Amino acid sequence: MSGMNRLPQGFIGAGLSAGIKASGNPDLALIVNTGPSRFASAVFTSNRVSAAPVIWSKQVVVDQRVDAVVLNSGGANACTGPEGFLDTHKTAEKVAEALGISASDVVVCSTGLIGERLPMEKIISGIDQAVQQLSPDAGLDCATAIMTTDSRPKIFSQESNGIRIFGMAKGAGMLAPSLATMLSIIAIDAKVGPRADAIFKDVVSRTYNRIDSDGCTSTNDTVLFMASGSSGIDIADSDLESLLMACASSLSQELIADAEGHSKIVKITTINAASEQDAVEVGRSCARNNLLKCALHGEDPNWGRVLAAIGTTSAEFDPLTIDVSLNGVMVCQNSAPGEDRSQVSMRNKEIEIVIDLKAGNEAATIWTNDLTAMYVHENSAYSS
Amino acid sequence: MSGMNRLPQGFIGAGLSAGIKASGNPDLALIVNTGPSRFASAVFTSNRVSAAPVIWSKQVVVDQRVDAVVLNSGGANACTGPEGFLDTHKTAEKVAEALGISASDVVVCSTGLIGERLPMEKIISGIDQAVQQLSPDAGLDCATAIMTTDSRPKIFSQESNGIRIFGMAKGAGMLAPSLATMLSIIAIDAKVGPRADAIFKDVVSRTYNRIDSDGCTSTNDTVLFMASGSSGIDIADSDLESLLMACASSLSQELIADAEGHSKIVKITTINAASEQDAVEVGRSCARNNLLKCALHGEDPNWGRVLAAIGTTSAEFDPLTIDVSLNGVMVCQNSAPGEDRSQVSMRNKEIEIVIDLKAGNEAATIWTNDLTAMYVHENSAYSS
Repeated sequence: MSGMNRLPQGFIGAGLSAGIKASGNPDLALIVNTGPSRFASAVFTSNRVSAAPVIWSKQVVVDQRVDAVVLNSGGANACTGPEGFLDTHKTAEKVAEALGISASDVVVCSTGLIGERLPMEKIISGIDQAVQQLSPDAGLDCATAIMTTDSRPKIFSQESNGIRIFGMAKGAGMLAPSLATMLSIIAIDAKVGPRADAIFKDVVSRTYNRIDSDGCTSTNDTVLFMASGSSGIDIADSDLESLLMACASSLSQELIADAEGHSKIVKITTINAASEQDAVEVGRSCARNNLLKCALHGEDPNWGRVLAAIGTTSAEFDPLTIDVSLNGVMVCQNSAPGEDRSQVSMRNKEIEIVIDLKAGNEAATIWTNDLTAMYVHENSAYSS
Repeated sequence: MSGMNRLPQGFIGAGLSAGIKASGNPDLALIVNTGPSRFASAVFTSNRVSAAPVIWSKQVVVDQRVDAVVLNSGGANACTGPEGFLDTHKTAEKVAEALGISASDVVVCSTGLIGERLPMEKIISGIDQAVQQLSPDAGLDCATAIMTTDSRPKIFSQESNGIRIFGMAKGAGMLAPSLATMLSIIAIDAKVGPRADAIFKDVVSRTYNRIDSDGCTSTNDTVLFMASGSSGIDIADSDLESLLMACASSLSQELIADAEGHSKIVKITTINAASEQDAVEVGRSCARNNLLKCALHGEDPNWGRVLAAIGTTSAEFDPLTIDVSLNGVMVCQNSAPGEDRSQVSMRNKEIEIVIDLKAGNEAATIWTNDLTAMYVHENSAYSS
């Protein structure tokens, strides 16, 4: 596993327990880019009530330069007022001071309960400790330190043609566009071209923004991409896009596969839509329909709930000509009963829904989960 | 209870078991207006995938004249193709023939499972039977015949100044704007003025369309208002509005109080909004946030989830100055921690959330329920 754990050239990191979490589990991570390039791009939550670290980090990435990112679990530092913003500022200042860089090049990410101040003394001494421990073999430690209700750390690592890419993500509930309660860092040691920012943002919109576990959008979502150039190799735009897609798709799938209390992984593909946006809207509407999510949980091929969800969208379609397939059986043809629903088996963990809008040539896939009693239990018994 | 059961003057009705439901429970209702006025107005689901009876009835009410309404439970006749539409047509024709009226004055309402044809022989003979049994004391029978997962019939009845109003409603899941899986008929024996249509539609938008049990919009929602004029009394517009508000508010509350698998009734009031529409959008966003609904179920005063839900709306507000009170305790002040959340008691069945946007002078209240394991169970184990 040392391969998985290895950061790309130019990056060093550390993950440890700073004592923020009462459990004593790891809760602080630091990743530093020491390479010749400090290129960075980021996508943040669309939630207008955004956490202090998001407000801060949005400014940091404006110049596309990031030297370090510090992340904590155990507290979101959201809805904490001006004091909370000062806490984020102090965190960045501390990292900058310890590393001899500028605070304006330090991204801060936090995740955990909304509405509580962070224990700043623990954060500050945790940063001191992290700086001491910085190492190229820190991927797993970093991924572990950002976990909240995640059951396992989520890492992607790949090396090919002398270029290494590393990605990590956390998130298990509140998974919805835009983004999830999700923090994800992707690092590469290639030299990237001027289109890297656009390529990264497009990849995010087609991966992280196409998973929707529970329709709830967090205040803290951040996906950060950093390139060190330390391999000395120029990467072609098309190769960069492929690598980023592989990394982001894999991490997104891991998020859906680890969503709180789910029993099913549901792939909703909308085909023959007038636009990709229509296809996304239709898939998302199904992904957010509680009645449908309950039916999927109950392994009930209740396609009427798919139609009812589609009908609430503004996508282009004729309400009388929609086809729906469940696990390959076209149970609904022209918005009316097709093949017998008893032919559908939904016993497997993965369920596939294909919706044919017959309105154009575009398509999109949204990934979601079912709605379970366990989801209710986890989210009613736990302040998060 | 004979008072509750009595229809307004000019109306006769019947409710019975036509054998549509396998259980043998009542499943067919007929209400006929025999008065000098046949005024009617209706509001239908906004779902673009609308059931055959909705497509039919929309045409019927265009001329604001309705002579009779026939309703069935045990099948929604939605997503049933051209044959399903013919079934609705036949149903209206049968009622018209039996009563000597025009089919184009017969509203049809259906509720139940989507995607299955209705047993038309049973419906036809049920109509024959209903016509034989028509009586002024049929309110309870009618309300009982339209139940699906409702635990009890829902009736409103009031007589004052010689005018009687009667309302009935069904709906327990899929309760969301616009409307719910909801059928509701309101009948009055007053003579109404030319603004009755506008008054009725406004009342619906402020009552039925402000309950949102589970965010799911049905294919069959219909609220029909009929006036017979049989009392001979002209009703002032303001009195009509008051009566309709009383009736529609009461029935809406009964729907929320009987929602599938709930343990809490949640009143979300948004104040000081820039517009009533903003206030509704904010309330509805909270009502549809699964994480918040789980927290309410767990009696957890997790106000961060309220803020996170507000942040996903397009309403006018400053993200840093929002106040939130839970059961009278202002736990969030200026988007930051206010009074201690431990002061909030959420043991009672009713929970009140007040959101102060500080952006204007408008307000609106949305009613919803919590999300429970029982909701998941009812909607995963039962094809509806």
